[in-house]
Amino acid sequence: MVYTPLVRVAETCEHRCVSVDRIERVREAMRQQRMEAIFLVSPANIAYVCGFSAVPFERLIALVLPSDQAPRLIVPLLEVDAALEQTADLVELVPWRDEDGPAHAVSRALIGLKGAVGVEKSHLSISRGELVTDSCPTARLTDCDPLLSGLRATKDAKEIEFVRCAASIADSVMVALQDEVRSGRSEKELSEVCAALLREAGSGPRSLPPTVLTGKKSGLPHGRADGTRLQEGDLLIIDFGANVGGYWSDITRTCFVDVEPDSRQSELISVIDEARRAAIARAVPGALCAEVDEAARSVIESAGLGECFSHRTGHGLGLEIHEAPFFHATNRDPVRPGMVATIEPGVYIEGYGGVRIEDDILIGEVGPEVLTTSPVSSGSQTRS
Amino acid sequence: MVYTPLVRVAETCEHRCVSVDRIERVREAMRQQRMEAIFLVSPANIAYVCGFSAVPFERLIALVLPSDQAPRLIVPLLEVDAALEQTADLVELVPWRDEDGPAHAVSRALIGLKGAVGVEKSHLSISRGELVTDSCPTARLTDCDPLLSGLRATKDAKEIEFVRCAASIADSVMVALQDEVRSGRSEKELSEVCAALLREAGSGPRSLPPTVLTGKKSGLPHGRADGTRLQEGDLLIIDFGANVGGYWSDITRTCFVDVEPDSRQSELISVIDEARRAAIARAVPGALCAEVDEAARSVIESAGLGECFSHRTGHGLGLEIHEAPFFHATNRDPVRPGMVATIEPGVYIEGYGGVRIEDDILIGEVGPEVLTTSPVSSGSQTRS
Repeated sequence: MVYTPLVRVAETCEHRCVSVDRIERVREAMRQQRMEAIFLVSPANIAYVCGFSAVPFERLIALVLPSDQAPRLIVPLLEVDAALEQTADLVELVPWRDEDGPAHAVSRALIGLKGAVGVEKSHLSISRGELVTDSCPTARLTDCDPLLSGLRATKDAKEIEFVRCAASIADSVMVALQDEVRSGRSEKELSEVCAALLREAGSGPRSLPPTVLTGKKSGLPHGRADGTRLQEGDLLIIDFGANVGGYWSDITRTCFVDVEPDSRQSELISVIDEARRAAIARAVPGALCAEVDEAARSVIESAGLGECFSHRTGHGLGLEIHEAPFFHATNRDPVRPGMVATIEPGVYIEGYGGVRIEDDILIGEVGPEVLTTSPVSSGSQTRS
Repeated sequence: MVYTPLVRVAETCEHRCVSVDRIERVREAMRQQRMEAIFLVSPANIAYVCGFSAVPFERLIALVLPSDQAPRLIVPLLEVDAALEQTADLVELVPWRDEDGPAHAVSRALIGLKGAVGVEKSHLSISRGELVTDSCPTARLTDCDPLLSGLRATKDAKEIEFVRCAASIADSVMVALQDEVRSGRSEKELSEVCAALLREAGSGPRSLPPTVLTGKKSGLPHGRADGTRLQEGDLLIIDFGANVGGYWSDITRTCFVDVEPDSRQSELISVIDEARRAAIARAVPGALCAEVDEAARSVIESAGLGECFSHRTGHGLGLEIHEAPFFHATNRDPVRPGMVATIEPGVYIEGYGGVRIEDDILIGEVGPEVLTTSPVSSGSQTRS
């Protein structure tokens, strides 16, 4: 096998921002928490640490990062070539065959470890946890989820570049999509047009079906696009993300089919836009995540719509489309520079419909920068 | 809330084959294994038991099925409407809010249970396992993965109808795609054409990016389509699945770009096609899964290519694209009527390329029926 130098990997692999520095940053956090090694199975964490974008099927793929030895990537035999191409000489590969199962590979990758081994308690299944314990009875398992999510919550310059690019694609697709909004088209058609525009605009191979919900269905925050047709005067919620270099953006706009919004629709848009502005204004370094949520929620409650705002105000963006920080009422974590997150207040009225506006923000040293800059609703050019 | 009668759900929801009978079948298996309840988090298992197609994000969605009380579906508040629409009156909903987290909902759903509670050890994370233990200290956790995978491995008439339809779509898309194979096109273009054809043919909202690998890249069994262009004389592997009613088909064909295969390519196709036929012929009720694998493997080994066949011979198909049964050398489970699976021998030669042929089969009372009937390679009309 020929090892590819890191610079070529930097040009070709999906997660282009992994380097020896990244691994050292993780190790420094491990040392502070006295972990001798970490054992990772979450595809996003594996991609974050070593750049390998694991195909998330049922075969075990795991990364063992000892504090003072080379990282070891456990892969099914048929992923060896992809792993070599994507990780170059950053990791040692420990392959396993279908007929053998992964137990022996796990033992080899964990050999010699006997202190605290960090595992992702939110991701590692009970049976794979048992595999680790059986393979390495001298290890003491401890939770490394907070370590990884804490590191991943603040982005470095290269990661920010990817999210910025993904947000820019989301904006341009959202603007182009406005020309496609007219009565008679179905949610599903519009969703497929959106997916095609995303591909054209350079959004990567990872994709989620765009959410397009019209009329009463806009009152379902996680409804699915189907054959329902747009009708004149309907509320229309469009929500999708773009992916660049593995990093997500996420955008929602509320549109009006064919005509200007009526007074009730305008009122709802106005409330949600005010909630959005209030939350963004509160998202400064040092504020608590709960305070960002409270800023949006109090605007909506003042308008008598508190019961209709059934979800958190926002979530972090990165290698996962939902990751830390989470803006909800009980999260006492502070907002920190380098965080990238959505602000997405919404109201959902049964039998009527819903309104949501979602922007992506980057927390700077003194305050937030809004990365998504397309008009907050069709017919409105207002920006905060 | 208005409860939708089950018959309407049967027409509208993605998983149309769930009924009270299904739930009773699961309960019967629970009684045999003395489980007082099962606690499910795997989206496919939840869909199988109650018909709810969970959006697999980070918020907890879980189904508690007691042996003698109504099923309880734990859902985040913003999934309540979707859950009501999809499950009608089959389940009781136990919603939770972002700011509260799911612990209280888990306690409510598990209330009163004190015997063996089945959990999916291969799917349940350690932290969610702890949530179950903390919420219900009187319960004794036991593994229910084998119970669910055992039930799901043999399909009922409605499930077979879905897989049959998905296989038929896969065939028609594969045939249509042959007109698109020509030198100069990129793998990525061909993959996107394939995805568009699948949508047109009625494949459902679930999708996986079609695998299109040409030239030397065909030697990577899990490589990804990129800008690599097809060249005259190249081997070309095309692998994708269609989804109908939640159920997958999975097909692979090896094609030749612009010209007839040369002698080495023809020889490889011939070996793999013989291996495919041998495995299908062995897939009769009562045979061991390992024997199905052995049938294909011995053909490939006799041709001196054993080292190049780096994966199992096939896998089951259903609500997941990889599920039981698995055809590999150490699986002593018997083949049973009603199983649906792939047979997909392949060889991968570094620096040269690869050949794989994948068919879907249904095990009948006396033997297998091949569900994918398109020509096994371009230029070949041969069928077993």
